[in-house]
Amino acid sequence: MVKFTTGVTRESIIDVQGYVRATERKIESSTQTDVELHITDFFVVNKAEPRLPLQIDDAARPVTTVDEDKEALSIVVNQDTRLDNRVLDLRTPTNQAIFRLQAGICKLFREALDERGFVEIHTPKIISAASEGGANVFEVSYFKQKAYLAQSPQFYKQMAIAADFDKVYTIGAVFRAEDSNTHRHLTEFVGLDLEMAFKHHYHEVLDEIGALFIGIFRGLQDLYKDEIASIYCQFPAEPFEFCDPPLRLEYREAVEILRDAGEEMNDEDDLSTPQEKLLGRLIKSKYGTDFYILDKFPLAVRPFYTMPDPSNQKWSNSYDIFMRGEEIMSGAQRIHDSPMLIERARHHSVDLEKVKGYIDAFRYGCPPHAGGGIGLERVAMLFLGLDNIRKTSMFPRDPKRLTP
Amino acid sequence: MVKFTTGVTRESIIDVQGYVRATERKIESSTQTDVELHITDFFVVNKAEPRLPLQIDDAARPVTTVDEDKEALSIVVNQDTRLDNRVLDLRTPTNQAIFRLQAGICKLFREALDERGFVEIHTPKIISAASEGGANVFEVSYFKQKAYLAQSPQFYKQMAIAADFDKVYTIGAVFRAEDSNTHRHLTEFVGLDLEMAFKHHYHEVLDEIGALFIGIFRGLQDLYKDEIASIYCQFPAEPFEFCDPPLRLEYREAVEILRDAGEEMNDEDDLSTPQEKLLGRLIKSKYGTDFYILDKFPLAVRPFYTMPDPSNQKWSNSYDIFMRGEEIMSGAQRIHDSPMLIERARHHSVDLEKVKGYIDAFRYGCPPHAGGGIGLERVAMLFLGLDNIRKTSMFPRDPKRLTP
Repeated sequence: MVKFTTGVTRESIIDVQGYVRATERKIESSTQTDVELHITDFFVVNKAEPRLPLQIDDAARPVTTVDEDKEALSIVVNQDTRLDNRVLDLRTPTNQAIFRLQAGICKLFREALDERGFVEIHTPKIISAASEGGANVFEVSYFKQKAYLAQSPQFYKQMAIAADFDKVYTIGAVFRAEDSNTHRHLTEFVGLDLEMAFKHHYHEVLDEIGALFIGIFRGLQDLYKDEIASIYCQFPAEPFEFCDPPLRLEYREAVEILRDAGEEMNDEDDLSTPQEKLLGRLIKSKYGTDFYILDKFPLAVRPFYTMPDPSNQKWSNSYDIFMRGEEIMSGAQRIHDSPMLIERARHHSVDLEKVKGYIDAFRYGCPPHAGGGIGLERVAMLFLGLDNIRKTSMFPRDPKRLTP
Repeated sequence: MVKFTTGVTRESIIDVQGYVRATERKIESSTQTDVELHITDFFVVNKAEPRLPLQIDDAARPVTTVDEDKEALSIVVNQDTRLDNRVLDLRTPTNQAIFRLQAGICKLFREALDERGFVEIHTPKIISAASEGGANVFEVSYFKQKAYLAQSPQFYKQMAIAADFDKVYTIGAVFRAEDSNTHRHLTEFVGLDLEMAFKHHYHEVLDEIGALFIGIFRGLQDLYKDEIASIYCQFPAEPFEFCDPPLRLEYREAVEILRDAGEEMNDEDDLSTPQEKLLGRLIKSKYGTDFYILDKFPLAVRPFYTMPDPSNQKWSNSYDIFMRGEEIMSGAQRIHDSPMLIERARHHSVDLEKVKGYIDAFRYGCPPHAGGGIGLERVAMLFLGLDNIRKTSMFPRDPKRLTP
């Protein structure tokens, strides 16, 4: 039998039968140190081809710096080889852990919202008009018409609120036709979206969102300890830190922090990506948290449907949420009043004909509401301190990758 | 105040403050019969426009036959008016109940599978090649390339199985470019998909699927009693009946039942839609169940990747599942061995170049596995005995409808 088994190709699927026996000495080379399997029968269920395009051991090898171990670095499997052979790559302990943890994020998200009385909805991905002006949108041939892929479920979440559903969430594919080849952009990603009517102030919603994230982080740290440890073995990172309740700063405070650090910017300038990263480091050293909310963005840098701050129209009732200095959620109180929406659309020179369907949804009574959209792959990447979003997308899509 | 309140348009959003007081007599005209609200303050939060495109009362009116009540029928709101004004239409008690129950189906599906050790995954919707020959597939402009919308997550679920995830499920949009304008076809729907490695026989998977459905039906009947009652008020239907364990028939038995009822068909003919419906009625009267599994379909009528029955190649290890005589799930054991897959693809005259990526996924070891895909909207429609799938899709898409 020993001869037969040595002839079985690596990665083949086998069935074995045998006895589990206690060992006399600890077996140091295995994760099971005190028992051994004595095999009596051995079957090959499905044979792998002898030449593998990558070795699982190579794909699973811990990342080390060049100085520490030159040899190890030389046989690291590169990202494209991994993705081209994703079926093999996903067999590494790290990838098994990443996607189990990712499933955990969705589960914790849903459980928390179900408990709070949210209703799960499903929104169409094929839409008739590009919602935000037509940039960055994929076109679809729809029988004899043109259609587009939805960049966000926002319109439909808002319609559900206008339709008396009160609190809704949806998890689904979101499409962005951005030709961005960066570590954090995908052309298709999973959006965790929520929208909620509120009574007095949009901070009721922001409080819920903050608590939701804290619950997810706690849940991951409690329930996915082994997965996190296993991922850190291959890709070492600083553990993710946060405070409860989460740190919430106003946009102008963030600008001040950046100015104190030497950045030159005006009150209402949008944050550049390097500024966001810098802000992340400054906040981490000042407040000790990797997670924070920036509230009250300048009205000028937000879309037309964003509710202005009633006390000062320079600002808006809108927010972004960050993990390790990268944006993982954008949200706002939306304008729920159709005449005001028309006025703001005109101010932004939006073609009213193109947003007619959107505006009409608010003509027959709609409560004040706010919400936002979270990028699942970004949350997983940044929680784990990984360097590339392709590591947290099972089958990533970017401008250059459509397979497998 | 009374004068002011009578001037407020219907469907406006209001805030009221007041005292809840016990009534002396039962109030028959309200669902709350023993208390009344004595209003002290009344605010209009958001005013609806005075002319509504449909009245909620009309949209909520129970369906009655012409003979019983001619007047009632004359002011039923038609489907297109409803869908064109979905924000108002969704405010009816029936629609509130339908979409809460639909969320319940997803929740029960996930909870049951989480408990059984399944991992939730997310699969790409934009794909590089049309998986099943290119018919019925939507084309997408992907930067300078052509791409397509996935008709099923099957390939990706199978890759996850080949990648050692053992048991996976995914809930997401599925696209079919079929120009079918029927009561049960949508061009975009929500697929509840699962795939599972098994040890000895694909019936291990079919048993799990059967138990999964029974659990969902029980859960709906227990947890959504009020919703179901409310829906039946407007759209009366026979309550959904099933047996536990579910009825499972072989395809040849179904053909016999149909032949006994006078249908002329050969052993390996596929079932037509009218035959499926007839079979549903015959099975209901014979076995008293609206839910049943047809197993062992003729190999000839199934796709190339379907595992033939090893004992008789006339049949295959594949199954369809029905509710009230309509198909709600199709599934099979898939061929997990790449040489066999190539042979079956050749037999079906499938262009090997086009399915190379699919076949390659099975070259490096894959356990035997089976699975299937469930149409969420169909399950909701047929569980409730509704007559049109547009009633169970919040924002339906068909060849003629892309809005709202």
